[in-house]
Amino acid sequence: MTAPLRDNADFIAETTDLLRRTPAVLRGLLGGLPPTWTGTPDTADGWRPRDIVGHLITGELTDWLARTERILEHGTAREFDRFERFAMLERDAGMTLDELLERFADLRAQNLARLAELVSAADLGRRGLHPSLGEVTLRQLLATWAVHDLDHIAQVFAGMAGSHDAEVGPWKAYLGILLRREDPAAIAG
Amino acid sequence: MTAPLRDNADFIAETTDLLRRTPAVLRGLLGGLPPTWTGTPDTADGWRPRDIVGHLITGELTDWLARTERILEHGTAREFDRFERFAMLERDAGMTLDELLERFADLRAQNLARLAELVSAADLGRRGLHPSLGEVTLRQLLATWAVHDLDHIAQVFAGMAGSHDAEVGPWKAYLGILLRREDPAAIAG
Repeated sequence: MTAPLRDNADFIAETTDLLRRTPAVLRGLLGGLPPTWTGTPDTADGWRPRDIVGHLITGELTDWLARTERILEHGTAREFDRFERFAMLERDAGMTLDELLERFADLRAQNLARLAELVSAADLGRRGLHPSLGEVTLRQLLATWAVHDLDHIAQVFAGMAGSHDAEVGPWKAYLGILLRREDPAAIAG
Repeated sequence: MTAPLRDNADFIAETTDLLRRTPAVLRGLLGGLPPTWTGTPDTADGWRPRDIVGHLITGELTDWLARTERILEHGTAREFDRFERFAMLERDAGMTLDELLERFADLRAQNLARLAELVSAADLGRRGLHPSLGEVTLRQLLATWAVHDLDHIAQVFAGMAGSHDAEVGPWKAYLGILLRREDPAAIAG
């Protein structure tokens, strides 16, 4: 099921390949899309697409690169700052979804350029200290950056599907993405 | 939570806008991506990205347009043919993921062109007969086409995340997309 760990040089190339795609994927999916598709959160108390893009912006501003630098400068001697999971709600109130998509793309490009300067394969085993999870490696941090993208982009799809919950009629019984918004364990018919 | 039903002309424009994006989103996400990201199914007995693209190809070949035509020609007098949910496994065995992405893009473009010729706003209330679900409208069929895209693209992300399950270390506890591959009701910490 799960691929074996890859060597460190390939790992950096393949992880940054994925990270580089995210802004274009989100722009292709959401850019200029009518608000009838983008105004609904993934669950009743969840996030709309614009909240998710805002959360990804927070990661670029305060998390992934800052933690990379913390590992390189301090190792486990100084733990990471915590991730502000709701920072976007106030910060982004005046921005459109399209503006947020461009902001995210700019920040991601800057951070990947900086990452390429900072990190080489030999660094991936270096360790840092997460405030709740304890010791982690730089390699785990970079993998988590990419999987965190995947997790939140998938959440965008759930909100978009939810915007059309009332449109699909009896087909809802076959659409797990709609059923799981109400019951996470639901299985489509 | 859910947007009210929209008028039929807007509905066609907004639904086809979404349907037109899917091939580019999938190509941007998966095209040329190393197999370390694309070889894992979304769940233990689930589908890899190539299986999902194949399933979407089946929909273009045999389902959405065929059912649209059935409604327009026969109304509820002749029920839809069933959707072959596993047709892709044998049919696509010799094709690469990149080839499947191009095949899907071609079929989707052809089908949207044909849809624009066939269907106008006045047709959306016309009814057909689903072999299990009973009477459905053309509008529900088109909404389901789009939400079905969203459902299966989200599934692609789960497989991609799963390919890196062993890479994220203790962060897995925070990554719902990984936890739910093993327990659909899991909640990230």
